[in-house]
Amino acid sequence: MTNTAANIQCTVPVELGERSYAIDIGRNLIEHAGTMISEFAPGTKCAIVTDTNVNAAHGDSLRASLSGAGLEYHTIEVAAGEASKSSETLGIVVDKLLALRLERSDLVLAFGGGVVGDLAGFAAAITRRGMRFFQIPTSLLAQVDSSVGGKTGINSTLGKNLIGAFHQPSRVLIDVDVLKTLPEREFRAGYAEVAKYGLIKYPDFFDWLEQSHTQIFAHESALVDAIAKSCRAKAEIVAADETEAGQRALLNLGHTFGHALEGYTGYDGARLIHGEGVAIGMMMAHEFSNRMNLCAIDDVDRLRHHLKTVGLPTSIGDIPGDKPNVETLMGFIAQDKKVKRGALTFILTNGIGKAYIADDVPASEVSSFLKDHLSK
Amino acid sequence: MTNTAANIQCTVPVELGERSYAIDIGRNLIEHAGTMISEFAPGTKCAIVTDTNVNAAHGDSLRASLSGAGLEYHTIEVAAGEASKSSETLGIVVDKLLALRLERSDLVLAFGGGVVGDLAGFAAAITRRGMRFFQIPTSLLAQVDSSVGGKTGINSTLGKNLIGAFHQPSRVLIDVDVLKTLPEREFRAGYAEVAKYGLIKYPDFFDWLEQSHTQIFAHESALVDAIAKSCRAKAEIVAADETEAGQRALLNLGHTFGHALEGYTGYDGARLIHGEGVAIGMMMAHEFSNRMNLCAIDDVDRLRHHLKTVGLPTSIGDIPGDKPNVETLMGFIAQDKKVKRGALTFILTNGIGKAYIADDVPASEVSSFLKDHLSK
Repeated sequence: MTNTAANIQCTVPVELGERSYAIDIGRNLIEHAGTMISEFAPGTKCAIVTDTNVNAAHGDSLRASLSGAGLEYHTIEVAAGEASKSSETLGIVVDKLLALRLERSDLVLAFGGGVVGDLAGFAAAITRRGMRFFQIPTSLLAQVDSSVGGKTGINSTLGKNLIGAFHQPSRVLIDVDVLKTLPEREFRAGYAEVAKYGLIKYPDFFDWLEQSHTQIFAHESALVDAIAKSCRAKAEIVAADETEAGQRALLNLGHTFGHALEGYTGYDGARLIHGEGVAIGMMMAHEFSNRMNLCAIDDVDRLRHHLKTVGLPTSIGDIPGDKPNVETLMGFIAQDKKVKRGALTFILTNGIGKAYIADDVPASEVSSFLKDHLSK
Repeated sequence: MTNTAANIQCTVPVELGERSYAIDIGRNLIEHAGTMISEFAPGTKCAIVTDTNVNAAHGDSLRASLSGAGLEYHTIEVAAGEASKSSETLGIVVDKLLALRLERSDLVLAFGGGVVGDLAGFAAAITRRGMRFFQIPTSLLAQVDSSVGGKTGINSTLGKNLIGAFHQPSRVLIDVDVLKTLPEREFRAGYAEVAKYGLIKYPDFFDWLEQSHTQIFAHESALVDAIAKSCRAKAEIVAADETEAGQRALLNLGHTFGHALEGYTGYDGARLIHGEGVAIGMMMAHEFSNRMNLCAIDDVDRLRHHLKTVGLPTSIGDIPGDKPNVETLMGFIAQDKKVKRGALTFILTNGIGKAYIADDVPASEVSSFLKDHLSK
């Protein structure tokens, strides 16, 4: 066994007072997960919550690592896909955690992508009023987004992520090597969230992405740098606003439109996956900002060029199947949780790296923008 | 309308940093709830979560008060009784809150006893990752126990309160006048939790209860004093240990045995209600402590005398129906959440007002104590 510390290439602290934790980023970390967990919580019992795909690809490797460290573990496998973020699957996971007689101080390992992280994290949040958990995210999206910040939850028939809790992990282990088995489309979708941080408030990072995307997509060392910078960016924003009372809402850049698009496709991953929705949503946020005379057309074009270069969709027309109508999308937007006292709250932008929260966006402007966007 | 402030006889602060809140205790407060809510959150929408009994007795009074203050409200009624602390009822309440398009800053009013408080509080905790809520407890038990401290949750088939969250209310309104319509048996059961505070660490309060119980049961001003002292005691213990990492466990005095007894009766309120289980459990904790040479027999006898004086049960034999066997009770005890790494944790006592946490109680001693207790 090689030295664990040598495999950790970067540790990002998330400063949340008594709920602070660290994100370890490196190569081949799953093989060392047992040792790392053992150092954190000697003798703890582990419940690995994972999905069919991740379990098949990496489950044995994680279990061997836990066994090697002398840790007792159980595996709770759920179906891969967004449909597992349901109250039914949540009930199954929680019942299993209880039946295993795990205690508050035992450890739930959320081992998978964003769906598993949200589901397992929420199950940990509500089992015995809060069990400890580690995030071991296996998709690029989860590594740079959902594993940082403690948002956990499931979907309701009325909308995405409407049921959930803020529950911070005790630690996050990001093994970039697992991304080698991630489907190219998933990797690309995750990259949309990486680019998002540049668009929000780190224009230099966006410049660097424009230079480095080839190396990132080739899994070279730039990938570790991109993930680390993304985690640092998110950690900084979250630390300033843990429960999304203010600035944290910036992280929703592209998400109000994105969620509406996911809603209209019925969360059908064959048509649209989350990061793709975010890519289109970010594009629309820039176009809408330009239409409102907030953002220069050059920035809009520059973003479109970069997203297209890496192969991401940039308009609703890129989604296969029927186009939605304006009313359907407005219905999803109104139900989105970023609505406050009836006024629409959007993340708009003054240009690349200059996003801001606009809490007074007239619904009529959004509606007429959507109409034009759809007619293109 | 009379002056609101004049009706508040006492305000108990619960000091929890950014989650601090106040408990207002007084007479005729429901008539003033609208004004009080309006001052706290002008223009908020309210979702009254209540049960059939409380809604029939006091719902119109609360609604009139909200209307009078110009507040929009909706009522979500659940069946009275412990069975409503289920994932099914939780799902119905959450879906209703979402369908009403209430926002995070809108207000859930938990208007009822402990069941409604736990259920509505948990629904508020997980809807949109945390809505604000007020507790307006209508049973003595809820007023002195579940409305203070932020424990919310539902039952699992594997045990009581195993699914839930810590979610602090924004405020608690305790109207002692609603207790006049509370069934005598419920009032008495709530009194068991009042007495518990004396037993834990306030021996003077227990002395005072021995002197004042007649006035308390007659709803005289001593009742306000008893509730205020109970809330202060609980607030003090909770403030020192919000998530039950340490001293807060003292509040579980009588609860490990009590929960096991509720479990064996299948939560059949005709046989045993929570406060009665706690009364028997507190008695058993004192008897067991005496058996372990920790507590003088005089204190055991003094407690038994007081509980009997106010009409509370003091032994398993007082529960109507078949007696449980030792194995059944031990099974419930082992599943209780106060188990840590296999060793049994109990709240034991060195005498009245001298409870402490014992985390190394041998299961064999408990088992043999139960055998003797059951054979009496």
